[in-house]
Amino acid sequence: MHELRSNLTKNKKAKIGLFVLDGVGGLPFPKLTELEAAKTPTLDKLAKKSETGAHIPILSGLTPGSGSAHLSLFGYDPLKYNIGRGILEGLGLDISVNEKDLLIRGNFSTVIEKNSKFIITDRRAGRISTAHNKRIVKLLQSKITKIDGIQVEFTSGLEHRFVCKLKFNHKLRGIETRVADTDPEEIGVAPLNPQNQNKESLKISKTIFKLISAMRTVLKNEKNANYALLRGFSIYPKIPTIESLYGLKAASIVTYPMYKGISKLVGMNPLEVKDGTIMSQVDTLKREFNNYDFFYFHVKKTDSFGEDGNYKKKIKVIEDFDRALKEILKLNFDVVCITGDHSTPSKMKNHSWHPVPVVISSKNSFYGTSKRFTEKECLKGTLGLFEGKNLMNFILAHAGILSKFGA
Amino acid sequence: MHELRSNLTKNKKAKIGLFVLDGVGGLPFPKLTELEAAKTPTLDKLAKKSETGAHIPILSGLTPGSGSAHLSLFGYDPLKYNIGRGILEGLGLDISVNEKDLLIRGNFSTVIEKNSKFIITDRRAGRISTAHNKRIVKLLQSKITKIDGIQVEFTSGLEHRFVCKLKFNHKLRGIETRVADTDPEEIGVAPLNPQNQNKESLKISKTIFKLISAMRTVLKNEKNANYALLRGFSIYPKIPTIESLYGLKAASIVTYPMYKGISKLVGMNPLEVKDGTIMSQVDTLKREFNNYDFFYFHVKKTDSFGEDGNYKKKIKVIEDFDRALKEILKLNFDVVCITGDHSTPSKMKNHSWHPVPVVISSKNSFYGTSKRFTEKECLKGTLGLFEGKNLMNFILAHAGILSKFGA
Repeated sequence: MHELRSNLTKNKKAKIGLFVLDGVGGLPFPKLTELEAAKTPTLDKLAKKSETGAHIPILSGLTPGSGSAHLSLFGYDPLKYNIGRGILEGLGLDISVNEKDLLIRGNFSTVIEKNSKFIITDRRAGRISTAHNKRIVKLLQSKITKIDGIQVEFTSGLEHRFVCKLKFNHKLRGIETRVADTDPEEIGVAPLNPQNQNKESLKISKTIFKLISAMRTVLKNEKNANYALLRGFSIYPKIPTIESLYGLKAASIVTYPMYKGISKLVGMNPLEVKDGTIMSQVDTLKREFNNYDFFYFHVKKTDSFGEDGNYKKKIKVIEDFDRALKEILKLNFDVVCITGDHSTPSKMKNHSWHPVPVVISSKNSFYGTSKRFTEKECLKGTLGLFEGKNLMNFILAHAGILSKFGA
Repeated sequence: MHELRSNLTKNKKAKIGLFVLDGVGGLPFPKLTELEAAKTPTLDKLAKKSETGAHIPILSGLTPGSGSAHLSLFGYDPLKYNIGRGILEGLGLDISVNEKDLLIRGNFSTVIEKNSKFIITDRRAGRISTAHNKRIVKLLQSKITKIDGIQVEFTSGLEHRFVCKLKFNHKLRGIETRVADTDPEEIGVAPLNPQNQNKESLKISKTIFKLISAMRTVLKNEKNANYALLRGFSIYPKIPTIESLYGLKAASIVTYPMYKGISKLVGMNPLEVKDGTIMSQVDTLKREFNNYDFFYFHVKKTDSFGEDGNYKKKIKVIEDFDRALKEILKLNFDVVCITGDHSTPSKMKNHSWHPVPVVISSKNSFYGTSKRFTEKECLKGTLGLFEGKNLMNFILAHAGILSKFGA
């Protein structure tokens, strides 16, 4: 699809803003969704004079992770570009990654020894504190710097999570990195072997095996975090950039490392934001408005409060964004698109598969179908209910960037 | 798709009920569809507090047979799993089938001999009565029990139709059973040869050739039914079971052999139903409720009366189901889904391609979009208009059985 789209792309510039309210979609709870309950005069006014619809992030009924959902919004088929967990976790921790690096997601965990076998008693080492994690990671790094001549770097995540980066001396190919996760995802059993899943990956699986042993040696006297489970062995994915596909110079205005990472994956330049507030993101947008064609603007807190089940605070973030939008619309965008990457209903305290409202404003909008920017109202629009990966078609079309298909 | 879905399936149980009102969708006739005209207080109440939508059984504009439409509802791509006519006809006649059996659909027909060639004058032998058919099948079975050492079994269908089963001594592979239909689908021409379509199928085509000759020898003095045209040579299809895919123990509550057969194909256990009434199906459901995770409950008569063009009786069946639903909803289902396999508008006296309303009730429903369980009202829902094969995604999502896609 993005080959087709890219082939149709005219050599034309336009100012495009893609505003993603993470997890914005909700469920009636009990009567109104968060969007329905929020007071959003600016969004409503925009919805009335814009084209509307709702997107299905991945496929009917599938609940997406944020990484896959975002790739979809950026126009990539999320089934084709299924980015490894190690990479996403690494990007989230702001680790720099290149094509020689293998990234691994780790969990500190607790094991006991029984008949000279390890048995997992806690996959998360009792969710040790992040401070505790940092101490252990420092210890690991002081004892382990190379395995099989390959440089090893450890980085702390939150609680029991960490990332391990192996810096190889050659560009890695996906085929040589197919190694099975060692986390059996249950307790009372032994950790799994880092089994190679094809013969090309035998060498790396042996290195991982040694790494696990070396880590155990360092950790064995720890009380809780006496073992490390590894998964998501992954390399830097080859994704064509937004600029190479559509000739648009793209920037991201985000406040969380994970989204910075995803935006970098597709060639966006992450811009500096003074603090975590939406208004400081707007300041960045105003300051850099003339320097880029495509802005990806990410609001994280709608999702965070959705996951906490905090209906009221999620509503408040939507209202905050509505106020910010008033400022945003004063800028001279050709296309403004507002949507979410997926739904995170406060009622479910989790991501969900439900469709996500979309509004696209341009001089060529089919308007007049929706009264508000809500799940139900947007469903009435001419964009219809569509797969998220097609959103970029609509955005580029509204920007006048796509030429005719066929004769 | 069901590989993807199956990979995302958590090891989690839930009570799921899929209620299929065969051919329930209709057309305004003249003003209201059957669903709109029916008094359905329980369905309406459910629709108000559930998620709704409409499914397209196969693809836009395609009218399905019941077998394909059901496979789609069960989550299988009906274009991939196109089950042979011989098998479907056999399942319809409640013939037991295993992997060593070749099933063939036959038509008694009328031929004349001309220049030592057969010419078909009636492809259906004047639509002989079923009683007449039974007499001939008995005659055939008394004279033909083996061909090439392979046991042959004949079974009467309705009017001119019958099924022939060849019981081989080895597991059949699809590749050795590619034999062309002998019915030219026109009169005034000769029957076709049971031509092998690859070299692996030469042996079986020779056996079929001998079978046809043997049948002609038995039939040659019959007045109408003096020849048999054969088609749909097919073996038992390899379909992964619902249990192997989703870990759900599944049962069917059906009253017609064809649906029992289809449910067995996907690994469901057909449960005993005392008589053909919906209430006796409900009794079975209550009795077995604790023994299975997934129940497929099939109501046949909506389709039968639709095919008869009996608008009033189709409405009555819908109302009967509505009363039964009141009992059904007292059971502790996690997910209840009500839909049809396809539309059978009384106005058309036939299956049609029109979308079929769907209601899914769970604690995570996006409700409040539809006032009734009707074609028009359900179209307003957040499930949207979707391909039938995706229904199972939604059902599993609502059951909380699918884990997140991607990171």
